Amino acid sequence: MLERGRTLATPVLRAAVDRLAPPMDTVAAYHFGWIDAEGRPAHGDSGKAVRPALALLSAEAAGRAPEVGIPGAVAVELVHNFSLLHDDLMDGDEQRRHRDTVWKVYGPEQAILVGDALFALANEILLELGTVEAGRATRRLTTATRKLIDGQAQDIAYEHRERVTVEECLEMEGNKTGALLACAVSIGAVLGGADDHTADTLEAYGYHLGLAFQAVDDLLGIWGDPEATGKQTWSDLRQRKKSLPVVAALDAGGSASERLAEILAADAKLSDAQLADFDEEEFASRAMLIEEAGGREWTSQEARRQHATAIAALDRVDMPAEVRAQLVALADFVVVRKR
Amino acid sequence: MLERGRTLATPVLRAAVDRLAPPMDTVAAYHFGWIDAEGRPAHGDSGKAVRPALALLSAEAAGRAPEVGIPGAVAVELVHNFSLLHDDLMDGDEQRRHRDTVWKVYGPEQAILVGDALFALANEILLELGTVEAGRATRRLTTATRKLIDGQAQDIAYEHRERVTVEECLEMEGNKTGALLACAVSIGAVLGGADDHTADTLEAYGYHLGLAFQAVDDLLGIWGDPEATGKQTWSDLRQRKKSLPVVAALDAGGSASERLAEILAADAKLSDAQLADFDEEEFASRAMLIEEAGGREWTSQEARRQHATAIAALDRVDMPAEVRAQLVALADFVVVRKR
Repeated sequence: MLERGRTLATPVLRAAVDRLAPPMDTVAAYHFGWIDAEGRPAHGDSGKAVRPALALLSAEAAGRAPEVGIPGAVAVELVHNFSLLHDDLMDGDEQRRHRDTVWKVYGPEQAILVGDALFALANEILLELGTVEAGRATRRLTTATRKLIDGQAQDIAYEHRERVTVEECLEMEGNKTGALLACAVSIGAVLGGADDHTADTLEAYGYHLGLAFQAVDDLLGIWGDPEATGKQTWSDLRQRKKSLPVVAALDAGGSASERLAEILAADAKLSDAQLADFDEEEFASRAMLIEEAGGREWTSQEARRQHATAIAALDRVDMPAEVRAQLVALADFVVVRKR
Repeated sequence: MLERGRTLATPVLRAAVDRLAPPMDTVAAYHFGWIDAEGRPAHGDSGKAVRPALALLSAEAAGRAPEVGIPGAVAVELVHNFSLLHDDLMDGDEQRRHRDTVWKVYGPEQAILVGDALFALANEILLELGTVEAGRATRRLTTATRKLIDGQAQDIAYEHRERVTVEECLEMEGNKTGALLACAVSIGAVLGGADDHTADTLEAYGYHLGLAFQAVDDLLGIWGDPEATGKQTWSDLRQRKKSLPVVAALDAGGSASERLAEILAADAKLSDAQLADFDEEEFASRAMLIEEAGGREWTSQEARRQHATAIAALDRVDMPAEVRAQLVALADFVVVRKR
């Protein structure tokens, strides 16, 4: 199912990216893993392609052919990658999908510019369909994009705050991850002429799928295998991310929670460079405290709760049984993945 | 006419910006000159508001009330300011409208983020009208935004190239300035139900108006009064901009042209920091050579040629005489302005 999304959407995505003026077409092709930094053809990891798969299933959920969802799949993928280009720069992330990030290779200007271009291209791909449905789809995509940006703003703000509540963290993650996954699951149906009730219910599935996805991501951001994730060890701890396991551990109370709060308060006084100088063991001991305080277990349970809520939403839409089974399988994949 | 655009569009623009999540609403309010860096209400210079004025005249050109153009005026102004936020960061510009730029005051992250948010908001404002016309207007705005980004990409690329042709420079300026002004002049008409011929012809006026505007901007970027422009003296020379006067001077041939080419080739070997250390006189002598080679005069004439082409386009649209007179007056203002 992920493979089908990639196979159907990638040629259209590549044709869209080819429209960009040089050197933006090259920079984008590098970002998507189609070429290496020297411009040679590559078969890099271009992501899990969960969103394109969802957009095609979305069209099928509305009783249409999967191809109806292709422009939606491409548009959502363009917006997702616009946000990756800008977020990697804002967060100072040097690696993505086992390769140097665009700002590292081509400089900050190109990361900003190509991000902007992918965002504009997403709207262009939809609106040039010229239909009323395309207008509705673009409106939903725009709403999702605004939430995505709100979420990144919250994420940045929370990194400078000592305490963040679990509710704030979930709201931020709903914006950052839930909104665009929700849009992916509704956009194919909207392009296929589905009504607002169907689209909204599919979005509910996608939103909770996104929160499950993000809970798993937060676990992988601390305890993930760098070989599998392509990120540094303890990457979220290095970046002082107020991710779910951290926030839940701080909220839990008890001795491990209090000890963690003290350590993070002391860390907050250090510069990023000082934090980067820490030994692996320093981060390992922070991860251990988060686990002792219950942050790891709570986040695992939260992933399962969001998974269940997502599946429950599917019962409120009338769709082919085969499509429902695939949406369930995708939700199952999201919570067990290792990367 | 500029005042009317500002009066009608600003309240709607402010309401739109108020939708942004904190701290993006504050950062945007600072950028627009509504508050100062300490958050106190201010009445800063928020730009010439040429684009909002054009969007309202655009609705009137199609025989509709100016108010029909307001969402278009706001959307175009949002896209324009999205590009200013990102361009100031990419270009390292520290001052705009006599004040520190957003990235200087709030950091690069906020400049990226708020720029993204204004771009998304522009689409949102139009698409939530929910009409077929709004879909057409958003498509035109998206096309213009893509050109705007192409133009910035070309601008950055040309700064690192030794020679740029006059044609390349005009294409870049058409993308950077012409495309969005063209959109401003068509968007009100499109929202008012005008056909594609009317919209395209209005865009032709706006495109050439934009090229006239940019030719004047290029003159002000070298010979403008810093008090009036709010920019540093010789700002385009400090930034190695391949603007029209420079490119035309290099293309002209003759001894001043050759001397200029030699000096700029030597400058190209210097770092930005070394260039920034130059005395005022160094830049003044470069400006003198550009003038001697004919770059200043050619650019003045180019502004007048583009002005004439813009006015000629107006004859191909049937519109109220009063609206035509105002579009002519606006074109006249653009070429005589000092800031």
